[in-house]
Amino acid sequence: MRVALLLIGFGHVGRRFVHLLEELRPALDARGIEPVVVGIATRRHGSVFDEAGLDAAQVARQVASGEMAGPSSSEQPAHALIAQLGSLSAEVRVLVETTTLDVRFGEPATSHVRAALAAGAHVISANKGPVAHAYHALASEAAAAKRRFLFEGAVMDGIPIFNLVRETMPGVRVLGFRGVINSTTNHILTAMEHGEAFDAALARMQAEGIAEADPSLDIDGWDAAAKVSALANVWMDARMTPQDVRREGICAGDAARVAAAVAQGRRMKLVGRAARTAGGIVTSVGLETLEVSDPLGGLDGQANALEIDTDILGRVVITQRDGGLEKTAYALFADLVEVAEMTSEVVFRGDR
Amino acid sequence: MRVALLLIGFGHVGRRFVHLLEELRPALDARGIEPVVVGIATRRHGSVFDEAGLDAAQVARQVASGEMAGPSSSEQPAHALIAQLGSLSAEVRVLVETTTLDVRFGEPATSHVRAALAAGAHVISANKGPVAHAYHALASEAAAAKRRFLFEGAVMDGIPIFNLVRETMPGVRVLGFRGVINSTTNHILTAMEHGEAFDAALARMQAEGIAEADPSLDIDGWDAAAKVSALANVWMDARMTPQDVRREGICAGDAARVAAAVAQGRRMKLVGRAARTAGGIVTSVGLETLEVSDPLGGLDGQANALEIDTDILGRVVITQRDGGLEKTAYALFADLVEVAEMTSEVVFRGDR
Repeated sequence: MRVALLLIGFGHVGRRFVHLLEELRPALDARGIEPVVVGIATRRHGSVFDEAGLDAAQVARQVASGEMAGPSSSEQPAHALIAQLGSLSAEVRVLVETTTLDVRFGEPATSHVRAALAAGAHVISANKGPVAHAYHALASEAAAAKRRFLFEGAVMDGIPIFNLVRETMPGVRVLGFRGVINSTTNHILTAMEHGEAFDAALARMQAEGIAEADPSLDIDGWDAAAKVSALANVWMDARMTPQDVRREGICAGDAARVAAAVAQGRRMKLVGRAARTAGGIVTSVGLETLEVSDPLGGLDGQANALEIDTDILGRVVITQRDGGLEKTAYALFADLVEVAEMTSEVVFRGDR
Repeated sequence: MRVALLLIGFGHVGRRFVHLLEELRPALDARGIEPVVVGIATRRHGSVFDEAGLDAAQVARQVASGEMAGPSSSEQPAHALIAQLGSLSAEVRVLVETTTLDVRFGEPATSHVRAALAAGAHVISANKGPVAHAYHALASEAAAAKRRFLFEGAVMDGIPIFNLVRETMPGVRVLGFRGVINSTTNHILTAMEHGEAFDAALARMQAEGIAEADPSLDIDGWDAAAKVSALANVWMDARMTPQDVRREGICAGDAARVAAAVAQGRRMKLVGRAARTAGGIVTSVGLETLEVSDPLGGLDGQANALEIDTDILGRVVITQRDGGLEKTAYALFADLVEVAEMTSEVVFRGDR
């Protein structure tokens, strides 16, 4: 099955995704999936579209190496490219959305998702914005268009947390969750436990490309709040935005609290939470003191963990010990396989 | 879609499964799945078969309450019932296998699985025996028969650990794993940390129905070895049996080691492991001293956890904080949904 891909956003995650399509070719071949990258839109190097297919890995290497010979031939806006993708009506079409996001507003990713669904394309996105800000509307639009809208990379990088609940826990009701889901703040808190100053730890995270360019998105809790909103929207039908999350960040002044916790054999973690209450769904992001034996308390550095409280299975925890951008790219790959498998007209793995 | 179910084995797990079919009816209705229990074979109360359908929940209540009015009308052997199930050729047929197992030999479950596949039925089983002893052969037989053989309840009760890797991690290669996967020994080790004697703790586990009737299956490490074998067979194509696992159990003489670990702020856990080496796949079950911040080190009582080492996603841990038989019954339910969805002739969730 030929699957036409348009990549809007072509940073580290988008480029790594393109390389994964080559590295994991056997897994695609085994499923009869033939991805063809027909378009790429970059932030600074223009865009390119060829319905016959591009050599995306070559473009990725050129962009990564700083050669500008990449997709610079045109400056078409993303929406024009999405319309071109939509015109390829004879095949499965997928928008791969990885633009830079302001999690406070969810744009431009949300507009891209909406336009692609309207144009008849499926959408896979590593962006938390659309699902944090507009999940209910976008899911309705996807259902009406008979298209998939998947976003496995939005929370916990490549760990298939949404898929876990959707595909493997039929009939299970999520009662709430709590998680350490922002890598930058967990890095900084871990560094502060070892005596490093807040500002120095943050600067190191930025130098290593782990922290957002605008550090307030991480340290003021916006990234975690967007993830809480996304999870609550998908699992608990919360119909909320990140602005609705009670939000507390971390700052240099927390050093004394961090040291006091360590002195007691405990650890401070920035925890995102959601719970069903008589008054509705209550969500928050804030510093909590945890035991080291707590599944969220033993996490170092980029590790993330999410504890899901369910009616039938009790508390289930999924932990990502080794995070990173390359895992987020894998989430797009897993979403692509899911779209392709569910789009097959006949999935006939067994006779009756 | 009508799905005919034959239950071989009707203990706590089988009876709880029957009640779940009622409690989770909305999730089945939403998927167009209409389960009909056509046969039940119990260990002590005989068997019953009616292709028009039984009131299984009523039978379950009768058996549980000690009224013998349950399935006592005949004493047909399991294989005769499986043949009857196979004769219902017009519909989807599923064997639900939950017989009492000797994990050292994998029978009678393995023979039941084999017979059902040969008779044209799908198989869902909470038994670790068939997958620990004969996974490669049974998977081949299932593929040849175009039937599914699923066993989510074999390891970690209801946590969809096999489904997690099979359905949500396409292209990912499992390099190895380690886990605390036997509840009885974890209970006993936790009790010994609090000063309880080994024999007293074991007796309590047996009284509570947590330990196997033959305690050697738990405390000598056979249960954990069978789970290691099952996981290695499915994820690493190991083609092994529990006898191939280097195996160490726990005993009263471990009290000093447990106390010494606690004195150091550490904990003793019975850990099952598998790793790929130059000499092949190496597996073991044995006591290890862990830090409390280790994802396996913080587990109390019936909690289980499994850390999967992968090529693309690094180390992923899934933790079940609240175990129990009712979760195992849910695993059968999830397997039933998977069989029904994959058996649908057309799964058409989206146009191209």
